[in-house]
Amino acid sequence: MSNKQILLKSRPTGWPVADNFELAETTVPEPGPGQIVVEASYMSVDPYMRGRMNDVKSYVPPFQIGEPLQAGIVGKVVASNGGAFDVGSYVVGMGDWANYTVTDGEGYHAVDPNLAPLSYYLGILGMPGMTAYVGLKGVAELKEGENVFVSAASGAVGQVVGQIAKNMGCHVAGSAGSDDKVAYLKDELGFDEAFNYKNEDVYKAMQRCNPNGIDVYFENVGGPQLEAVIANLNFHSRIALCGMISMYNATLDDMPPGPRNMALLVGRSAKMQGFIVFNYPELGMEWIQVAAGWLNEGKLKYHESVAEGIENAPQAFIDMMQGKNFGKQVVKLSDA
Amino acid sequence: MSNKQILLKSRPTGWPVADNFELAETTVPEPGPGQIVVEASYMSVDPYMRGRMNDVKSYVPPFQIGEPLQAGIVGKVVASNGGAFDVGSYVVGMGDWANYTVTDGEGYHAVDPNLAPLSYYLGILGMPGMTAYVGLKGVAELKEGENVFVSAASGAVGQVVGQIAKNMGCHVAGSAGSDDKVAYLKDELGFDEAFNYKNEDVYKAMQRCNPNGIDVYFENVGGPQLEAVIANLNFHSRIALCGMISMYNATLDDMPPGPRNMALLVGRSAKMQGFIVFNYPELGMEWIQVAAGWLNEGKLKYHESVAEGIENAPQAFIDMMQGKNFGKQVVKLSDA
Repeated sequence: MSNKQILLKSRPTGWPVADNFELAETTVPEPGPGQIVVEASYMSVDPYMRGRMNDVKSYVPPFQIGEPLQAGIVGKVVASNGGAFDVGSYVVGMGDWANYTVTDGEGYHAVDPNLAPLSYYLGILGMPGMTAYVGLKGVAELKEGENVFVSAASGAVGQVVGQIAKNMGCHVAGSAGSDDKVAYLKDELGFDEAFNYKNEDVYKAMQRCNPNGIDVYFENVGGPQLEAVIANLNFHSRIALCGMISMYNATLDDMPPGPRNMALLVGRSAKMQGFIVFNYPELGMEWIQVAAGWLNEGKLKYHESVAEGIENAPQAFIDMMQGKNFGKQVVKLSDA
Repeated sequence: MSNKQILLKSRPTGWPVADNFELAETTVPEPGPGQIVVEASYMSVDPYMRGRMNDVKSYVPPFQIGEPLQAGIVGKVVASNGGAFDVGSYVVGMGDWANYTVTDGEGYHAVDPNLAPLSYYLGILGMPGMTAYVGLKGVAELKEGENVFVSAASGAVGQVVGQIAKNMGCHVAGSAGSDDKVAYLKDELGFDEAFNYKNEDVYKAMQRCNPNGIDVYFENVGGPQLEAVIANLNFHSRIALCGMISMYNATLDDMPPGPRNMALLVGRSAKMQGFIVFNYPELGMEWIQVAAGWLNEGKLKYHESVAEGIENAPQAFIDMMQGKNFGKQVVKLSDA
């Protein structure tokens, strides 16, 4: 069986470009004992991948030059050599940027293609959705009726953050990078306030959109918005540091300065906590139940951008990093 | 009875200067029902006071123009109109920058002048000591044997932080602003490593002094050291944000940029938490017991700078903000 893979050709310095990636045609090896072969229906592209392209200490090892990049994949088991999943079943897990992945199935779990579209298991029912829930409940300890702000609010994580908070009776404000996205947040997702950070003064917008101050900030971007948030924090407020998309691409000397007003965190007894979804596995599982219920009741909406074909995965990743996607970005690899 | 007070004449912009303060001579009013008059033996000058000179929202209201500034005082009760403390007893609490304070005694407590020198109740047995303990135990949840770094390590809070951590079997490193202070940290207080941030590259020094990385950072200063700390954080590390002395004096436009590498907090699941000692009253009381025991056993040393006379309180404060003090800065006001 022939396979197409995307390899890391070189490590980006700054923003990733097409030349950092390379398409390779190989054949799918026979699965070893206990292994399965998954034909991917969809793969995910996510901001955290940019971090793994750097050669630095982090919670997962960096991608290796000349090797396939890794991504969340969902798809059908097409071969098994005594593996944990039956041929014909659907699974989600970490696989290659490729049409086919051979794996021992560690970290994989079965999914039900009738409960939700397969791609949802990479988004609202997958890591981005879990990240939103874990950040709000586990890290920020969000309570009913608090005041919440989320950046990158129309993104894969942000749109879920806002809807969870609305379902908890919170005042919810968010920022996004286009007027269309802002309209989507207010008209479709029920945000109380939203602004376009590209064409409004961030300090003024932050005050206007958070009239009661901010109890919880779900941080997806880094850069100037964080400083404006800190200026509006309430006592005992919490910042869940999820990603900082504006900073993944920068070398230290090019990085935007951090917030100048961090001393305000002292007087306001505010907490800022970095986290990854794997820190709270129980909450992640809890989310799938909560989300399935809310999807059924119509209390949760979801927007995706879908690219087509493994060849287009690098460009889908590059575009997502620059904010050109609308909602969760996935790549469709087959009708499997 | 005549009284000398220091009033806030104008709010500093940037560093405080002598002209922001004004000496006033008044007479001590008769205590009202339930009130006492305290003759201060010592008053404290502390970095947090700079914050209260600004007209901004914080955990305590700002100082008012034309009114006496407030400080921790320790002294003798010289008059009482049915107040909670007997004439002749010694008390500590928040009072005026003045020789005499009239107060209803709220927040005051009695102290034993035979247990320790009176001035210690403003320092190692008072708010700075409690702040060190609360920050390490309550905020950073320090465990035996971890790797600790503290900035402003020879200051009122820092010297206690380092000694608590050493008594808990930790690897302890610190920074200070002169070679004398660095020698004091290593030779007198038993720090494993220390550096002079004024004459060594902060990034290199941070690596050299924290060979196992940093599990807990006790942040007293803000500015470039925080960025260098973040670069050396271990997984699940904690930063207790106590004060940021380098930032209290700056207007937003003059403030040093914050750390550029905050995105690293995500992958390392690191927590940064601002706090004030009043958030953890039980731990504060616990500290007095722990510290009294350690002082008796010789496991706790303490260094003070003592200025003399209420007229010199503003200069003592200004000098302390610029790091000219060595250890906890107090002002002696009487032999009472």
